[in-house]
Amino acid sequence: MKNKIKEYTPGTTRIEAFSDGVFAIVVTLLVLELRVPHLPENFSSAEVIKELVHLGPKFISFGLSFLVIAIFWVNHHQMFHSLEKTDRSLLWYNNLLLFTLSFVPFPTAFLGEYPTDMIPVMLYGFAMFAAAVSFNLMLRHAVRAGLFLPSISAQTMKESIKRGMLGPVIYFISIIGALISVYISLAVFILVPVFYFIPQKIVRLDKQ
Amino acid sequence: MKNKIKEYTPGTTRIEAFSDGVFAIVVTLLVLELRVPHLPENFSSAEVIKELVHLGPKFISFGLSFLVIAIFWVNHHQMFHSLEKTDRSLLWYNNLLLFTLSFVPFPTAFLGEYPTDMIPVMLYGFAMFAAAVSFNLMLRHAVRAGLFLPSISAQTMKESIKRGMLGPVIYFISIIGALISVYISLAVFILVPVFYFIPQKIVRLDKQ
Amino acid sequence: MKNKIKEYTPGTTRIEAFSDGVFAIVVTLLVLELRVPHLPENFSSAEVIKELVHLGPKFISFGLSFLVIAIFWVNHHQMFHSLEKTDRSLLWYNNLLLFTLSFVPFPTAFLGEYPTDMIPVMLYGFAMFAAAVSFNLMLRHAVRAGLFLPSISAQTMKESIKRGMLGPVIYFISIIGALISVYISLAVFILVPVFYFIPQKIVRLDKQ
Amino acid sequence: MKNKIKEYTPGTTRIEAFSDGVFAIVVTLLVLELRVPHLPENFSSAEVIKELVHLGPKFISFGLSFLVIAIFWVNHHQMFHSLEKTDRSLLWYNNLLLFTLSFVPFPTAFLGEYPTDMIPVMLYGFAMFAAAVSFNLMLRHAVRAGLFLPSISAQTMKESIKRGMLGPVIYFISIIGALISVYISLAVFILVPVFYFIPQKIVRLDKQ
Repeated sequence: MKNKIKEYTPGTTRIEAFSDGVFAIVVTLLVLELRVPHLPENFSSAEVIKELVHLGPKFISFGLSFLVIAIFWVNHHQMFHSLEKTDRSLLWYNNLLLFTLSFVPFPTAFLGEYPTDMIPVMLYGFAMFAAAVSFNLMLRHAVRAGLFLPSISAQTMKESIKRGMLGPVIYFISIIGALISVYISLAVFILVPVFYFIPQKIVRLDKQ
Repeated sequence: MKNKIKEYTPGTTRIEAFSDGVFAIVVTLLVLELRVPHLPENFSSAEVIKELVHLGPKFISFGLSFLVIAIFWVNHHQMFHSLEKTDRSLLWYNNLLLFTLSFVPFPTAFLGEYPTDMIPVMLYGFAMFAAAVSFNLMLRHAVRAGLFLPSISAQTMKESIKRGMLGPVIYFISIIGALISVYISLAVFILVPVFYFIPQKIVRLDKQ
Repeated sequence: MKNKIKEYTPGTTRIEAFSDGVFAIVVTLLVLELRVPHLPENFSSAEVIKELVHLGPKFISFGLSFLVIAIFWVNHHQMFHSLEKTDRSLLWYNNLLLFTLSFVPFPTAFLGEYPTDMIPVMLYGFAMFAAAVSFNLMLRHAVRAGLFLPSISAQTMKESIKRGMLGPVIYFISIIGALISVYISLAVFILVPVFYFIPQKIVRLDKQ
Repeated sequence: MKNKIKEYTPGTTRIEAFSDGVFAIVVTLLVLELRVPHLPENFSSAEVIKELVHLGPKFISFGLSFLVIAIFWVNHHQMFHSLEKTDRSLLWYNNLLLFTLSFVPFPTAFLGEYPTDMIPVMLYGFAMFAAAVSFNLMLRHAVRAGLFLPSISAQTMKESIKRGMLGPVIYFISIIGALISVYISLAVFILVPVFYFIPQKIVRLDKQ
């Protein structure tokens, strides 16, 4: 992929526009997994509430995936905002990230259907792990290929990469943890976005 | 969320582009709840019409949700048009609004299926209430954090917030009203967009 | 709607961005009506082909709706390209057009399922009629409110409106025609886009 | 289509914005074909894994179509980036391309369901063939009508067209090949994107 010949690469704006489209569609498609419950004839309100409570895990997985993808969107823009230029490899690392994100509705629906079963929990962890790794690969490439604005210090970029390792590591733990107890993984899924909003911003990509 | 360190926030344009994507997708996904009726062999036109009439509540809930989300879109742009800058909190208040809106297809479908049952009616009211509250929180934050253009007077902003309270209050009434009669709530759902188009524009966010 | 107080209206660009989103999503959602046929165990190629032939009307209604919406998209941009400014009414006429277009996947699927039955054919004609009328109303409003660029002559605008009447009239005929024979309507559905590509461009909105 | 009268054509930017929308939606809709498996009561992890393995061909066809559409997206931007202007025919060649791409989710789902059956394999090959031919027609028209920037040499354009023939030819082989063995076609489907990433970039549209 690191070929020498000079070639066209879409500018930051264009990649962002396409990415924004994919981000917006993925978060909005998540709702399609919330299906209207089919109720018996002459159902009581208690029965409807029971059905909605039964949908609870789907609501939670919907909200969780929305939140995580929104965090990716924020980090994505923050990173692209700091880029001076792009290259073909960056474009394809970005496409890899979008691919992993466009896959998220499937494990989200699977987790919503079977929220305490090992395989669906591991698959959800794996999807998040894959997205986090893709983002990290893209970030590393941008640093290595010198695509960032000159105003971004080497120190900042090094810290970004180090901090950017947290996502992959934590989600890897969520995959392995499910072998012991799915509640370890579920705790990870819920705590990652929570930590994101804590002032120290442990899992934030970049604070410049 | 109100941290002191200076940090990157996407500009107005970028937030709007992402929001526009979500708005456009949500209104367009609503149609997916209109499923083609399965008709018996050698059906008569009368039977088809009966099936379409049976779909009536779904058509109405589809139209209603489209209209309400279109109003949110207009108010959203009107507000962002008046902003001088954004901050990280605004970004997340906006994500919260988009989250509540991306949820709308579910209560819309639910209401379309069971248009006169208490729980679906309350859920629809709650979804609208949540969206209206999110919008109001975002507006309040923007005023409090001084994100509006200097040309927007304090008076205008105060009035906007006051008028912006109408949505949450009215939709709260629609939730509670359903306990007495679902027709109170249904009247609210239909009258809110109607009032919007009345010249006085009672429920409009801002008239500058 | 024609209120005197000066108020904010989104610029042409913004309305177009939102509209483009809706147009793009509607044409792409159409494919969701093409469901993979469920085949028996040890099926033969002949059986698969039979199933695909059976899907024929769905393929045709998919292609037809894609084409008509693409024509609307071209006319929409052509019109907005000629606008100097917008107003609140134009915004809502545009929202009305988007509403009618976002509805199109339903009659498209219905027609694909029952291509020679009166009611589905009439409903499809009605959906097209509604979209064409909305477009015409928007165009008339823009002329009446003086929103076009000064370089667009009164003559051109008058001709546009006159030519823009063709769509509503033709699709009205397709609704009524179905009462005599659905083949009248089906002929209209197929001929309208065909005429569009004939050099004289009978149904084109505007040729400046 | 090649009419003499001067008429409005949307600029490059606008066509790209609409196209980006369609590209983004198509790649994201592909995931909807991955349905959560319905598992029996008290299922074991082994049964879940068996179900996921059973979904294998759907995962692969999802990934493959994502990749091919992403390649089309890159080529599309690369081409439009090199255009000086557009005309009405280009606009409709582009709409034809978008039409063929918006169809892709259907053959993708069909192939995922019946990955080793002749007709679904041929249909997938045909969809790719149609998209590749549309792209080539658009490219040829742009060259013939002199829409490229003056800085693009005649030699480069000639090479682009020649290289752009590879896609249609290879996918035509995949259609015919299925008559002998579907594995010929499946090999083509997998090898085309692989070749794309090989440094020589045999199937790349343009290397300027």
